Amino acid sequence: MKIGILGGGQLGRMFIQEALKYDDEFHVLDPNPECSCAGISHFVKGDFNNYDDVLAFGKDKDVVTIEIEHVNAESLEALEKQGVKVVPNSGSVKIIQQKILQKSFYLENEIPSPEFQAIQNASERNFSLPFVQKMNTGGYDGKGVQIIKTEEDLQKMWDVPSVLEHLVDIDKELSVIIGINESGESQTFPVTEMVADPKLNLLDFNICPAAISGDVEDQITKIAEQFTNAIASPGLFAIELFLDKNGKVWVNETAPRLHNSGHQSQEGNANSQFEQFYRVVKNLPLADTTIFGFSGMLNLVGEENFSGKVKYEGLNEVMKLPQTYIHLYGKTDTKPGRKMGHINVLANSREELLEKLTHIKSLVKVKAETI
Amino acid sequence: MKIGILGGGQLGRMFIQEALKYDDEFHVLDPNPECSCAGISHFVKGDFNNYDDVLAFGKDKDVVTIEIEHVNAESLEALEKQGVKVVPNSGSVKIIQQKILQKSFYLENEIPSPEFQAIQNASERNFSLPFVQKMNTGGYDGKGVQIIKTEEDLQKMWDVPSVLEHLVDIDKELSVIIGINESGESQTFPVTEMVADPKLNLLDFNICPAAISGDVEDQITKIAEQFTNAIASPGLFAIELFLDKNGKVWVNETAPRLHNSGHQSQEGNANSQFEQFYRVVKNLPLADTTIFGFSGMLNLVGEENFSGKVKYEGLNEVMKLPQTYIHLYGKTDTKPGRKMGHINVLANSREELLEKLTHIKSLVKVKAETI
Repeated sequence: MKIGILGGGQLGRMFIQEALKYDDEFHVLDPNPECSCAGISHFVKGDFNNYDDVLAFGKDKDVVTIEIEHVNAESLEALEKQGVKVVPNSGSVKIIQQKILQKSFYLENEIPSPEFQAIQNASERNFSLPFVQKMNTGGYDGKGVQIIKTEEDLQKMWDVPSVLEHLVDIDKELSVIIGINESGESQTFPVTEMVADPKLNLLDFNICPAAISGDVEDQITKIAEQFTNAIASPGLFAIELFLDKNGKVWVNETAPRLHNSGHQSQEGNANSQFEQFYRVVKNLPLADTTIFGFSGMLNLVGEENFSGKVKYEGLNEVMKLPQTYIHLYGKTDTKPGRKMGHINVLANSREELLEKLTHIKSLVKVKAETI
Repeated sequence: MKIGILGGGQLGRMFIQEALKYDDEFHVLDPNPECSCAGISHFVKGDFNNYDDVLAFGKDKDVVTIEIEHVNAESLEALEKQGVKVVPNSGSVKIIQQKILQKSFYLENEIPSPEFQAIQNASERNFSLPFVQKMNTGGYDGKGVQIIKTEEDLQKMWDVPSVLEHLVDIDKELSVIIGINESGESQTFPVTEMVADPKLNLLDFNICPAAISGDVEDQITKIAEQFTNAIASPGLFAIELFLDKNGKVWVNETAPRLHNSGHQSQEGNANSQFEQFYRVVKNLPLADTTIFGFSGMLNLVGEENFSGKVKYEGLNEVMKLPQTYIHLYGKTDTKPGRKMGHINVLANSREELLEKLTHIKSLVKVKAETI
């Protein structure tokens, strides 16, 4: 089958890597000929935000999918009208890529998500401090999101269409990944727990299973069911959640694609998110997502003050550790905060897992050959 | 690092697939532009048996390796002289690719292997019936090997340089895979047990761990040590063994490369033979090869009477089974006996494993769109 992917980053690369177990043909559209997928697929240079580029790329594919949600959704709709299968469908991508539509979707479907106001510009604000401002479009990896705490902060509000959102008093950040195929079958991955690096606003450790009560698990199961029923699209969706200090779960946001919070599934689960995504894209029976023990993931991000040809420190030491798996993304150049790879770890207990992850974090540095 | 691979078949494909976890550049030399590796590497069309082709291909690589042993060994030696690292080295490839040298190697190093006579032509035979005739060069997947039982059979002896070998009264066929890096570190995979399909003379099921006594295990450990000490080359080597009905272990033959008998390590071991091979090729610390339970592998080979565009039957049913992993080789066309893929299975006991494998074997057929 000819599978077209919009975006050629690490998510696409790990998807293709997993899917090399099967006999499909992968085509990738990306503006960067040096992208992570270029050497391992039929690469097409082009802009996935450009209507014509996407249409030309997609028209002869059996299925078109995405590894980034910031794509031209109108062209996806046009492809659907031409009879090309698009997974996830254009409707779901549109909802998710615009924060205002995404929040309205939660509201309409009674999915708990923090109270909000949608604004077209800063002057429309009618929402009490403190709050989070999320740009309607273009946010990614913490970009396009800022916290407005004080009257003084109001000066730095972005004057663009945005969602202003109530600040949750966060106890834990959680994530659940759901696969839904065209036949309507759905399968949820065990919930993972994140620890963020506040400085880079990037995911740091991701741990599975999350240490949560049965009640919290029930709330998440209900959210997953509500989401699955409402989204009306096949796809792999990552729902990022906040558990507040009163034990209530809120949806932060959803990604209509493979997600950083699912990387530990590569070795930690019976099947990974990449395998599940493959099955979703091809409308195959969904995969078993069982976990056998404790697993966790550490992102490898470019160190501050280093740019240029990447030079990893400590990887040989990490290779000597049992139940430890390095995944690099085929990126030649590093820059501060750039996601260059990750390391997955298996363990027999949460304590052992956190110890291993912390030790590995102390070993590895993502620097550059010259500063 | 620029890694050059001679051969673009499934072994190379699964090697590259695994190594996509790292940041290297893979170049493949194969005569067939439709080979399993073509779409996922820098492909060079050429003959790995041709001196000039191999030399031209290898000269600008950081390391040259093989996924098939029937390559031009003189060109590997020439590359070594030019300073290109070759893993496994040309000396070990030469020994293994010629059955007469291989048998002499065992004899010299006191590695137990069945009694034999080396002949240049049929008239030189001075070896009592029954015996196995193995052509000196070119044997593969059971080709170039025949059993001579009776005086009448002598008529069909091949009149070419060969090894005539004593027939072992086989209780079990076993295999052990050893990784040796340039630094001298070596690591052995747990022994696997094979069940062959007598009709196709192809590996059928491969099971890990093998059901063998401590004494047999000791014999194999000793063989592995003798081999490692004698071969004088980094590499991943698969030693195929016979356990005879008196409990003695004999070396059947060795492959200086990734091997079909190690495929179940993809999900059955902490790290697969492909990961280990990567570390050998790059002289990195070797990987942990621990097994967690029982694992097995079923080859998917083209059914008799079907040739042409492949059409698999039953794969969707297999996808519904837990702890079951399909691996196809990206081959468009099937023919009788062609290795098209394999299926790995995990289980909690040997009985459960054999039951699952037998069930899966009954589900899957490798046919063609038209007969």
